Amino acid sequence: MKGYVQVYTGNGKGKTTAAIGLAVRAAGANLKVFIGQFVKGMHYSELESLKRFSDLITIKQFGRDCFIYNDPTEEDIKRARDGLKESKEIINSGEYQVVILDEIHIALYYNLFPVDEVIDIIKNKPDDVELILTGRYAPQEIIDIADLVTEMREIKHYYVKGVVAREGIEK
Amino acid sequence: MKGYVQVYTGNGKGKTTAAIGLAVRAAGANLKVFIGQFVKGMHYSELESLKRFSDLITIKQFGRDCFIYNDPTEEDIKRARDGLKESKEIINSGEYQVVILDEIHIALYYNLFPVDEVIDIIKNKPDDVELILTGRYAPQEIIDIADLVTEMREIKHYYVKGVVAREGIEK
Repeated sequence: MKGYVQVYTGNGKGKTTAAIGLAVRAAGANLKVFIGQFVKGMHYSELESLKRFSDLITIKQFGRDCFIYNDPTEEDIKRARDGLKESKEIINSGEYQVVILDEIHIALYYNLFPVDEVIDIIKNKPDDVELILTGRYAPQEIIDIADLVTEMREIKHYYVKGVVAREGIEK
Repeated sequence: MKGYVQVYTGNGKGKTTAAIGLAVRAAGANLKVFIGQFVKGMHYSELESLKRFSDLITIKQFGRDCFIYNDPTEEDIKRARDGLKESKEIINSGEYQVVILDEIHIALYYNLFPVDEVIDIIKNKPDDVELILTGRYAPQEIIDIADLVTEMREIKHYYVKGVVAREGIEK
């Protein structure tokens, strides 16, 4: 099956959630899925759920247990670069039909690695791998070579009303 | 936990997929989830996957095994109305913390039931139920009373290049 390059970006909710949904749908068709989460090392409820798919879905986090505040640390940079290297190996391994690089655009936004390296991975991916990239601020260079780009646009958000992240809903 | 009303709309990909992701995340926190799919009765790979969550996620389809073409049939209308009635009962049952009404905006777009009935369900839902409504063409009346609204906007789509729905990716 021919694999494409999908991008989910924008300031609205649903980017990572759509990626999780994609992974689950793919598993329903017995496809093997790898999810690499950049800039994230926190506990999310989806990590718990995805244990039920340990035969088909592998999820790995390439970040720390807190968000980057101001400048990234050496540790942020190292984890992201190691994560990119590992992701590249996985994409080219022939073992996974679907590879999701969650929040990779945020890693690029913080200059954790150069966009050219990501472009290179996209351009040289095996033909049968579906590659999904998420995170706000998708760079134009990636949009230009993607097959499908969806912008999640925030129209209304209850955060402005002062809701914090709720277990099982936002995290 | 206080529950909100979330809307996913727009012409882009990822609405149903985000809803599936939401369901899976919620299950990871041991929340009980009901998914009602309007205007859909086809086989989707997610149905297969969600069997692994039969203790926490219930999914039911309120449509036929084909899309509505031109005018809806009596059968389309009956299934949608029965589905809305059942959804209302489920929302008010106190058994589910998360209820997803997938493609309900499409059911409204085809006038399968009046928007006032949906508004009524939203306004009278128990306080602790998170309600998620998906589908393009979300009516303004629903957007007005929702807490969170995300528009999935299509920036680029490979369908234009002639790709048909692929098992495990689009279906």
